[in-house]
Amino acid sequence: MTAFDDAKRAYDAKTKPRGSLGRLEELGCRLAEIRGFVPRKLHAAIVVAAGDHGVACEGVSAYPQEVTAQMVANFATGGAAINVLARRADVPLVVVDAGVATPFEHEAVRSLRIGPGTANLAEGPAMTEEQVGQAFAAGAALVEELGEVDVVGVGEMGIGNTTSASALTSALLGVEPEAVCGRGTGLDDVGVARKVETVRRGLEVNAGRDPLTALGGLEIAFLVGVMRTCAAKNIAVLLDGFITGAAALAAGVPEVLIASHRSPEPGHTLVLAALGLEPLLDLGLRLGEGSGAALALPLLQASIAILDEMATFADAGVTDAGR
Amino acid sequence: MTAFDDAKRAYDAKTKPRGSLGRLEELGCRLAEIRGFVPRKLHAAIVVAAGDHGVACEGVSAYPQEVTAQMVANFATGGAAINVLARRADVPLVVVDAGVATPFEHEAVRSLRIGPGTANLAEGPAMTEEQVGQAFAAGAALVEELGEVDVVGVGEMGIGNTTSASALTSALLGVEPEAVCGRGTGLDDVGVARKVETVRRGLEVNAGRDPLTALGGLEIAFLVGVMRTCAAKNIAVLLDGFITGAAALAAGVPEVLIASHRSPEPGHTLVLAALGLEPLLDLGLRLGEGSGAALALPLLQASIAILDEMATFADAGVTDAGR
Repeated sequence: MTAFDDAKRAYDAKTKPRGSLGRLEELGCRLAEIRGFVPRKLHAAIVVAAGDHGVACEGVSAYPQEVTAQMVANFATGGAAINVLARRADVPLVVVDAGVATPFEHEAVRSLRIGPGTANLAEGPAMTEEQVGQAFAAGAALVEELGEVDVVGVGEMGIGNTTSASALTSALLGVEPEAVCGRGTGLDDVGVARKVETVRRGLEVNAGRDPLTALGGLEIAFLVGVMRTCAAKNIAVLLDGFITGAAALAAGVPEVLIASHRSPEPGHTLVLAALGLEPLLDLGLRLGEGSGAALALPLLQASIAILDEMATFADAGVTDAGR
Repeated sequence: MTAFDDAKRAYDAKTKPRGSLGRLEELGCRLAEIRGFVPRKLHAAIVVAAGDHGVACEGVSAYPQEVTAQMVANFATGGAAINVLARRADVPLVVVDAGVATPFEHEAVRSLRIGPGTANLAEGPAMTEEQVGQAFAAGAALVEELGEVDVVGVGEMGIGNTTSASALTSALLGVEPEAVCGRGTGLDDVGVARKVETVRRGLEVNAGRDPLTALGGLEIAFLVGVMRTCAAKNIAVLLDGFITGAAALAAGVPEVLIASHRSPEPGHTLVLAALGLEPLLDLGLRLGEGSGAALALPLLQASIAILDEMATFADAGVTDAGR
């Protein structure tokens, strides 16, 4: 008997028709499969990593680069969407500065600052191998520090990072930039065309280089480290949208991934298909920050609460039709 | 300025790109539109009504009729899925016996008992006009008693009630029983064929009668009363699946409805289209009891928490790209 089977058997004993909670039951079985046992309470954390992107100077975002640091300050003081949604889901939020251009010190932010943002991927490699190694190690250290968690929700912030994620997805999946690039947080048609062209230049100038190092970001590399360490420790990773999805492509650990939602970014649907994931929500979310992961967490919590708290047919004296 | 516009303006001032929380923002605007003001905290309740159906004797359910009363007992002692999910969403659960065949007394159940179940709709009218009037009045009284709530989630329990809901949907939408009837909580192909035939007989024998009275159920009529009173008081109604959807068709108050999820019952998709509703979740849920409504409630709560708790661009000193 595997943990998946244990969870399935436990759901089947509960006072409801077999399988009638649909994907909620599949989700609980999947969590058990990843963990190697059936969790009784779901211990979760959300990790949001921020980083700046040299490619922002190409005019590929609706927002100026200064907004990355401003939003880290907003996370620190609890005013951003992810703060509200993590509180609603009753899970701790860890904010990491993986490499914001403007230093920002606050006790609520882990200041890793692997670099002052990346170099412009359209002109050469975004990061050095050493930076990527530091980001992996920092991600691994954070997961060790989280201790006994069942699931880590991942999120990101970084002006220009849909361009980095688009370039990474193009390179890793071998698809044209046009098929991947979308409006990000608010580009118009001219902006999208500029983004496609920027990604194309990035792919050409970095041909033959390691895609994550050449096209990724400090926050993306950090999240790759988080995901690989979660996989090594049988901890589930709850993805947010396109950028965390691109990081997941680079991480290569699909066995521990759960997709929270489908974003309107065209690249996200390609990433989800490549990872074999069917998202839980489809609400047109395009914010990032881990907001989709935080909105899906109550479904994961509910799937485990059903196992922990519901009566069985035997307990409750309810007639079981056995199907 | 309408309340909808007030909510939209409030979302637009928050530190996130305009509209980037997608349907979550639409949901908050819709709640404001229904209420006539922007709620600051979301006050919710879930009402689950149970009733037996004479048509159960036709073999249209995978479960015997005794299960209705057994499940009411399970609701009373807190062991059912809806108990777990209402606790997770931190909302009060009201359980109503609108007409279960076997009397069951418990302080956690409101014993209305408008009748000992309905008559067999395949042989004549399921209810009398007097019973329907009593059910409406009881639903209205319950909503009055709930007091200052912003949203009422509705659920039901009753062996045979997907057959009643199918007949009601066929009659109200003028569609063939084959297009409406599904597997309910676990029918095989022979069972579905029997259900189609039973609905067809019900439609024929009750031709010319009021559809709700002739084909509905005591719990369905009660929920119609709940919905109409919510509409009169500008309270939003969060629907569960197919049976509450059929009740909503009969209630005729689409302006206050929010659809929590899309169930696999073919009739449910017809009902949602007729009501002009796009559900929040699509998780293959087919349990009933208000379980889908309880799973969607955290999204409603989050939509309002965003308005109440997030910082504005001005508060947080974040540069606003204005789009």
